[in-house]
Amino acid sequence: MKKVGILGGGQLGRMLLQAAINYPVETYIMENDAHAPSSHLCHHFVKGDITNFEDVYNFGKQLDAITIEIEHVNVEALEQLAAEGVVVYPKPEALKIIKNKIHQKNFYKQHEIPTSEFVVTQTLSELNNHIHFLPAVHKLGSGGYDGKGVQLLRKAEDISVGFDAPAVLEKMVDIKQEIAIIIAVANNGETAIYPPVDMVFDPNLNLLSYQICPAVLPEKVFWKAEAIAINVVKKLNSPGIFAVEMFADKNDNVLVNEIAPRVHNSGHHSIEGNYSSQFDMLWRIMLNYPLGNTEIILPSALVNIIGAENHEGAVVYDGLNEVLKMDNVFVHLYGKAKTKPGRKMGHVTILSNEKQELLHKANQIKHCLFVKAKSD
Amino acid sequence: MKKVGILGGGQLGRMLLQAAINYPVETYIMENDAHAPSSHLCHHFVKGDITNFEDVYNFGKQLDAITIEIEHVNVEALEQLAAEGVVVYPKPEALKIIKNKIHQKNFYKQHEIPTSEFVVTQTLSELNNHIHFLPAVHKLGSGGYDGKGVQLLRKAEDISVGFDAPAVLEKMVDIKQEIAIIIAVANNGETAIYPPVDMVFDPNLNLLSYQICPAVLPEKVFWKAEAIAINVVKKLNSPGIFAVEMFADKNDNVLVNEIAPRVHNSGHHSIEGNYSSQFDMLWRIMLNYPLGNTEIILPSALVNIIGAENHEGAVVYDGLNEVLKMDNVFVHLYGKAKTKPGRKMGHVTILSNEKQELLHKANQIKHCLFVKAKSD
Repeated sequence: MKKVGILGGGQLGRMLLQAAINYPVETYIMENDAHAPSSHLCHHFVKGDITNFEDVYNFGKQLDAITIEIEHVNVEALEQLAAEGVVVYPKPEALKIIKNKIHQKNFYKQHEIPTSEFVVTQTLSELNNHIHFLPAVHKLGSGGYDGKGVQLLRKAEDISVGFDAPAVLEKMVDIKQEIAIIIAVANNGETAIYPPVDMVFDPNLNLLSYQICPAVLPEKVFWKAEAIAINVVKKLNSPGIFAVEMFADKNDNVLVNEIAPRVHNSGHHSIEGNYSSQFDMLWRIMLNYPLGNTEIILPSALVNIIGAENHEGAVVYDGLNEVLKMDNVFVHLYGKAKTKPGRKMGHVTILSNEKQELLHKANQIKHCLFVKAKSD
Repeated sequence: MKKVGILGGGQLGRMLLQAAINYPVETYIMENDAHAPSSHLCHHFVKGDITNFEDVYNFGKQLDAITIEIEHVNVEALEQLAAEGVVVYPKPEALKIIKNKIHQKNFYKQHEIPTSEFVVTQTLSELNNHIHFLPAVHKLGSGGYDGKGVQLLRKAEDISVGFDAPAVLEKMVDIKQEIAIIIAVANNGETAIYPPVDMVFDPNLNLLSYQICPAVLPEKVFWKAEAIAINVVKKLNSPGIFAVEMFADKNDNVLVNEIAPRVHNSGHHSIEGNYSSQFDMLWRIMLNYPLGNTEIILPSALVNIIGAENHEGAVVYDGLNEVLKMDNVFVHLYGKAKTKPGRKMGHVTILSNEKQELLHKANQIKHCLFVKAKSD
């Protein structure tokens, strides 16, 4: 059996290992927390720091292949491993571009990928030179994740909440729709593209509110989005799974927002909604099997299960039974012992041919399921 | 989190643990082989003998609930655990009836459940008193599994291959169709019934050749089968998952063949084919969640992946890539390092609205995928 390792033991690792159960593969996880969501689901758990060179290198050198569930890993160790013949998904060169939002934006510019206008800033005081550029979004070059490291700067007075570190200031786009497309790239360069997803965000948490797949898009937008997503992923020149997040504006322009070079929240519906899920697909790539079928089985909606405001501590899922009673609904809880506000604790996928039913149930779930802390 | 244990670490445990990943539960496996298919997929692996009282009792007493993936476990230990408050799925009383084929047949008779005529035999020589009863099937009272412990006795000369131990001799039924129905029973007695499955057996190995769900049955047979299956499961008076295998004869009579008080091969298609799979359903029962939806998402066919004749040793899957290339096909390999003739190494599920496509692909798979031993 091939030996394949994952850096990080969170929910993405958990769902990857769930998909790995269908294949003969020896699995390894490196993660600091022995009680993380995926620590118990692998053949070999290694406690270690995924940002530390020695830890990552020593973990990786015993493996045939290695992948990530988060970008914030030690890329130098992955480069060393790749040089020694361990196959790294994605390639360290691609990861280096994506890991830093400044490099990512420059990469789009260099390859003429449509993206929002931007300027690079090194310090907070520099922002004063770009007041004419507002409203804009200030994004930390490295270290941001899941809504952290991102600040909305609407007007001059907001500048104080910007970052006093290398960052990009991205001109605000008049967004009509946010779209995500997952693309799979095999070792031989062959690609498979998943149907686009329509992502609706919660403006307070900057977290996904719900998503619908396939997205309902004007035909022109659909073709543009597919073409742009395929193009940018091909330019990254790496096998693996890539989630391309895009904006469609009021004039039907499509702009790349961000790329994740890994399995991604915008593909979780594919577990039940598609013949080959994004997790299944990454195993097919890493085990050198043929790519899977990205077609949908049924249209889907997905709701994230997020830790409620003002609740921190041992988790209880209030309203869970109501959700479990719903037909056509699949509950995924990530097994995290503790909740805190905004923490991703699980997700729910709804399958139906009726878009109205998808929206109705997504809203029902958002109004009946709450992740709270146990009161003593 | 509730602590739930499984006795046995084979493919059923593996698929149970795969489904458990969707829920917050602390999982335990007891199994003699540390490299069994599910040994690495639980929070706590305990090496032990599932037929030994002390092993099972000590394993179980730390748990909230315990279930089985095979009938051949120490029932006395489960009785002791049940008496001490551990919830056992199925109840030890039900398991005792089913575990022994003589008790099972007597149970049907006592409750007037339609089943084939039978006589109980204690020794091989006793069979000579029942020559008029042939053709018949001789089944070992206890210890039989997956085609072992079953002998077809067509005529007097076959008697020598019968069992010299307590057994049942069942009159051969003129079988038109073999049907299986999975039934879920919640802790409060509520039941959910899965659509019937049409099972086609390989007469050589007495192993499943392929199965189709939902079974195409005359309406009368459908209603009879459902009513009989629900009735017999209710008589067992236990929560859990039950697979009821039945024969329909040429006169549209429906007879119960056997019951398995656990997740079962005849329900593997439910992983992709039904909203709540048999594995998902058992967790819902054990975690005291509402029962899931047994409806199909799409019709399915299932082909078992079986070790080829004359091949024993380190496994290779010949033709696997061809199967992985097929649309609408889901491959499940159980991660067993070694193959031997007749060993269940995995299964493949096909989803399609077209019965012809299901049959065509099932046959294609049977003719292109072979489980062989690596040649040195």
